Amino acid sequence: MHITDIIETTEFQHRLDKVRRRMDAEGFELLIITDPCNIYYLTGYDGWSFYTPQALIVFLNEAPLLIARKMDIPGIAMSTWLGADRLIGYDETLVQSPDGHPFDVVADEIIKRFQGRAFTAGIESESYYFSVRAFRLLCEKLTAARFIDSGFLVNWVRFIKSPAELDLMRQAGALLTKNMMMTIEAIRSGVPERHAVSAAYASNIDGFDDYGGSYSSSPAFLLSGERIKTPHLPWTDAKVGKDTQINLELMGNRLRYQCTMGRTVYVGEPPAKLRELEKIVCDAIDEVVSALQPGVTCHDVADGFYKFLNRHGIEKDSRCGYSLGIVYPPTGGELTASFRRGDKTVLQEGAAMHFLPAIWSDDVSIIISEPLVITEQGCELLCTVPRQLFVND
Amino acid sequence: MHITDIIETTEFQHRLDKVRRRMDAEGFELLIITDPCNIYYLTGYDGWSFYTPQALIVFLNEAPLLIARKMDIPGIAMSTWLGADRLIGYDETLVQSPDGHPFDVVADEIIKRFQGRAFTAGIESESYYFSVRAFRLLCEKLTAARFIDSGFLVNWVRFIKSPAELDLMRQAGALLTKNMMMTIEAIRSGVPERHAVSAAYASNIDGFDDYGGSYSSSPAFLLSGERIKTPHLPWTDAKVGKDTQINLELMGNRLRYQCTMGRTVYVGEPPAKLRELEKIVCDAIDEVVSALQPGVTCHDVADGFYKFLNRHGIEKDSRCGYSLGIVYPPTGGELTASFRRGDKTVLQEGAAMHFLPAIWSDDVSIIISEPLVITEQGCELLCTVPRQLFVND
Repeated sequence: MHITDIIETTEFQHRLDKVRRRMDAEGFELLIITDPCNIYYLTGYDGWSFYTPQALIVFLNEAPLLIARKMDIPGIAMSTWLGADRLIGYDETLVQSPDGHPFDVVADEIIKRFQGRAFTAGIESESYYFSVRAFRLLCEKLTAARFIDSGFLVNWVRFIKSPAELDLMRQAGALLTKNMMMTIEAIRSGVPERHAVSAAYASNIDGFDDYGGSYSSSPAFLLSGERIKTPHLPWTDAKVGKDTQINLELMGNRLRYQCTMGRTVYVGEPPAKLRELEKIVCDAIDEVVSALQPGVTCHDVADGFYKFLNRHGIEKDSRCGYSLGIVYPPTGGELTASFRRGDKTVLQEGAAMHFLPAIWSDDVSIIISEPLVITEQGCELLCTVPRQLFVND
Repeated sequence: MHITDIIETTEFQHRLDKVRRRMDAEGFELLIITDPCNIYYLTGYDGWSFYTPQALIVFLNEAPLLIARKMDIPGIAMSTWLGADRLIGYDETLVQSPDGHPFDVVADEIIKRFQGRAFTAGIESESYYFSVRAFRLLCEKLTAARFIDSGFLVNWVRFIKSPAELDLMRQAGALLTKNMMMTIEAIRSGVPERHAVSAAYASNIDGFDDYGGSYSSSPAFLLSGERIKTPHLPWTDAKVGKDTQINLELMGNRLRYQCTMGRTVYVGEPPAKLRELEKIVCDAIDEVVSALQPGVTCHDVADGFYKFLNRHGIEKDSRCGYSLGIVYPPTGGELTASFRRGDKTVLQEGAAMHFLPAIWSDDVSIIISEPLVITEQGCELLCTVPRQLFVND
């Protein structure tokens, strides 16, 4: 099973057309893509090979060229709609070597086509997998090139999902619902934290009778004790205590399409303050979810939510959501739209967002969030986990 | 539990001293570190926050400065030996924003100290988490700076492990032994591939009574059918067939210290050719393992192995191993020493290597590998998984 068994070649071509139109508008004659999410979106290739340099070069008037490590070419050929003649494998001696670099090959392919004239190339200057060394090497070899940051050009094309993609997002949501319920069930006083985390991983991967999950773009987060003041520390060897709060952030991933969700669990009798916060956050989510529809901006959503919190005496300044879709480590978002003040992105049908109104402060924190999709008239929740503070014994 | 409960502050200071001596030798007045492995190694901070920019600045004559997202500062403060006055949190508005960037704050901190004079700064030009945008911004703001690629300066300091680190590597090896045995046990005809993968994840994380595993730096690899021709494709929804070969590559991870190992499983009666390859590879491992000791170079190991293969009519050109230690996604190696021809690294006591004599060719492939540590007189295997082709029904 490859994504090309699910997504038609015409859809891949349609995606490529959209990218080329944006390139043309920006004046790019070529675009050098290293973000594995974007490579997967445009080619169908889903391999864990981005730890060595690889690049998809999109031209305006020639089929894209995918340059990767020679040993990965057979796997690419099995999984992409691109022809075998568009795949170039670089030699093993260039891997993690001080003497040569895979981007020598990238530069050579570009020189072949643009030799002797000036040209403008778009680059992904915030891609995790486009190193400074690779960039410096391109600058050195392609002296006639003007390199312009393409920002998140392909990521923005990914923002609106096709019907086939929405089905994958729904499957990711179903995996996550199961995953979250099983993990919460496993959180009991005296049980090692890691057993609950292990349940989360196994549940996502095992999935259902007819399909399972893929690896997520970040670890599962399970934070307890003083760690609830912070979002990104790892789980520990500790056992879950009595009268303990646990903040969970988990993922369901279906063929790289990912939903993320947070829930807080309290083992014991929750303090009154946490119950108050539960009500405020749940009411805020109700309000936001009922207001979501095409035409609303990300700013509107964040502004409404922050004002709601302010009326209850709570200040929050971190963003309260981001766009969902294809992910590879290290990030679970598309790096485009964020629910925050000033983000003028207009929500449209087919956009998938994680509304994450998490609140961390010195003395209290709670995470209750919802992954969702904007529909023609409103929004559709991708998970069916009860929206509440969970209380276990 | 944080790594600072295991590693003494004096050891962290000793690591820092080694880094400074190398910086001084290179003429760096400061070193800008973004690789989370290196940040963890020098500060003890293990958080999944590197998806937004962060930097550890090491100076020659001033304590290091760690600049990270404001919401992560509480988690950093809990887990590092650095004083709270050395932690700088940048504002939420700089996160994934087109208008500002966290490296504005990095640049400002450097300007404060070096204003008005030329200086040389080491950068990690192949760090996954040092973006081209961040680099261009530094170049723009720090006009008096000369940026020199530091290569893998800190990674090379990590190459030789302390006794406390070796204990963590041994725990990672024990987790991996359990993990591999349980995963192999789960591979049976008719069982969905993902159930074996799920066993691998759960087994590493659950671990033992007294400790468990951390997330690995890459997904578990389980490749079957035509996919055994390639190393990096994901598992699928398919069921394990009869007369099927499965190539596994799994990890055991203890507080970010990771061992990796490969094994091939055959469901049914293995073809004679695979049995032949099993014997060749196992004999080769015996030969290499018995020759490993301080003073041997990586080139020697690779050369001996390739010659051994050549005598059996097999050609291999990809490297056959790499240095192990602290890892974060996307890579399971330290990016320093490789077992390949031309790598003159001299093995020393306390170096940890993954000897990976995997063979992929058109009609046959096998993976049998060993993570190990160089000892005073030879080497110590980190796992106790039988060195063989596994045959299941």
